[in-house]
Amino acid sequence: MSRSDSRPQPQSRAQYKMFVPFATRWRDNDQYGHMNNAVYYELFDSAINKFLIDAAILDTAGGTAVFLVASSGCNYFTEVAYPADVEVGLAVSRIGTSAVTYDLGLFVAGQDTASATGFVVHVNIGTEAEAAGAQPMDADTRMKFAPLARQDTAI
Amino acid sequence: MSRSDSRPQPQSRAQYKMFVPFATRWRDNDQYGHMNNAVYYELFDSAINKFLIDAAILDTAGGTAVFLVASSGCNYFTEVAYPADVEVGLAVSRIGTSAVTYDLGLFVAGQDTASATGFVVHVNIGTEAEAAGAQPMDADTRMKFAPLARQDTAI
Amino acid sequence: MSRSDSRPQPQSRAQYKMFVPFATRWRDNDQYGHMNNAVYYELFDSAINKFLIDAAILDTAGGTAVFLVASSGCNYFTEVAYPADVEVGLAVSRIGTSAVTYDLGLFVAGQDTASATGFVVHVNIGTEAEAAGAQPMDADTRMKFAPLARQDTAI
Amino acid sequence: MSRSDSRPQPQSRAQYKMFVPFATRWRDNDQYGHMNNAVYYELFDSAINKFLIDAAILDTAGGTAVFLVASSGCNYFTEVAYPADVEVGLAVSRIGTSAVTYDLGLFVAGQDTASATGFVVHVNIGTEAEAAGAQPMDADTRMKFAPLARQDTAI
Repeated sequence: MSRSDSRPQPQSRAQYKMFVPFATRWRDNDQYGHMNNAVYYELFDSAINKFLIDAAILDTAGGTAVFLVASSGCNYFTEVAYPADVEVGLAVSRIGTSAVTYDLGLFVAGQDTASATGFVVHVNIGTEAEAAGAQPMDADTRMKFAPLARQDTAI
Repeated sequence: MSRSDSRPQPQSRAQYKMFVPFATRWRDNDQYGHMNNAVYYELFDSAINKFLIDAAILDTAGGTAVFLVASSGCNYFTEVAYPADVEVGLAVSRIGTSAVTYDLGLFVAGQDTASATGFVVHVNIGTEAEAAGAQPMDADTRMKFAPLARQDTAI
Repeated sequence: MSRSDSRPQPQSRAQYKMFVPFATRWRDNDQYGHMNNAVYYELFDSAINKFLIDAAILDTAGGTAVFLVASSGCNYFTEVAYPADVEVGLAVSRIGTSAVTYDLGLFVAGQDTASATGFVVHVNIGTEAEAAGAQPMDADTRMKFAPLARQDTAI
Repeated sequence: MSRSDSRPQPQSRAQYKMFVPFATRWRDNDQYGHMNNAVYYELFDSAINKFLIDAAILDTAGGTAVFLVASSGCNYFTEVAYPADVEVGLAVSRIGTSAVTYDLGLFVAGQDTASATGFVVHVNIGTEAEAAGAQPMDADTRMKFAPLARQDTAI
């Protein structure tokens, strides 16, 4: 998310490593008859957690990690509206000691250009009390992100 | 929805005429780790409107009807939780002059017994100002509900 | 919720024992520019849980009860829309061995007649695994509902 | 929203020109028992639209502007959870020819340091068909933003 005037450009599907499909819901549309801007984050969040559960990374799914969202952002390019079917594309652009940065794209089914792109930064706080703050991910956890890593993402 | 102590029993798929699939979302789960009771209504609503749009019944989809929800209800039998895939079963149990009563069932994908069942009563207010109140549906509109009608539902 | 043709009538504030205020949100309005029917249940749910937390009834608030929603229903009388301020009125119409029935009313701030009325049936499952099913409420828990009980509600 | 490692710091109330209060809702908490990251955007959105309606800037409120969200972002500092009361602080950091950038802060009632800070960029598309793209705001509209402008914000 840049605040500069050089407006970001929408990405194609080739930028993402995995896609999670969602049906939109009547309530996703706000008064303007298009998907409300907050709903994009609901879908990003759901796609990320689906990956984390399927890959057994989360504490509650047999892993050792618990993530809080540290920051998020979205650029909206073209309107999406119920009853469209959509897909969220995911890739990981950075894996730090305790943080993971996801790049996300929202695609209407059948379209190659993203309607919106965004990012979410997750910080691992581990299974101890949150007060402990950010915790390093163990090697096994880091390897589980490989399917989402881009060619230039160091794991 | 009866308030009596004769608790309703869950229905099987055979009671419904059409099914609309939905992926659940991370935010559907509340603090108890299961789908929040209000979300069932979001899904019922979305399934109904999908039918109304696909059947060209709604004003905004080439038809002549505009519906308000007059009443709704739900009985919850077994918990559902993200990341489950679900399907909403629909049937129409009554078509009045201006009102339509939908029977609804929420099924976890692959299960034959509903996790929850509910109903929604829609009242047609037509395309004029709402102040006019309930408006009779025209014959063409009524016929479009045939695919959801049960054997004993008079159209 | 009756499915009969004798449509229920909206209640006045005098029917309720406690009121919980909420600001509506832009996203509460759906495409028709009014509060979506599912949102009423979000507000009912929030008002009930606010009472249960403030009265230290819930397990997580120093009490011994954990409630699941067994059934719910709502009759919608007049439209409500963001940016209105609203209040949810609560009363308890029945306290059984393990179940509590709430009567609810949604009021636009400053109005005496409910825009919608509903009910929610909660069943206590206690702090043990849910598999155990409905659990009797202890005497201390039952007494905590007194502030919501109507004159004719046996505690 | 910067992706750099120089993590932003939470702001105090002094950075904002107006505050809009909200009660949180049971459903705002996700499975982790804290307000879900997407809900912050619901509240930012609601606070902004409340201002736009009260100031008669929006087309639907007697003005001439219709805004789409072009981008948004949020940094999360400390957890917030239902049943807390919260306030959204607003200021405008930039008014361009057709775009307005809002700075936002989410405060738990009674606290001076923001739990989260964010931004939303709105683009005016006017009352004509969206195809026309971004439209310049008229002088009257621009003046209506004065109450949110910081000392260094050119109107």
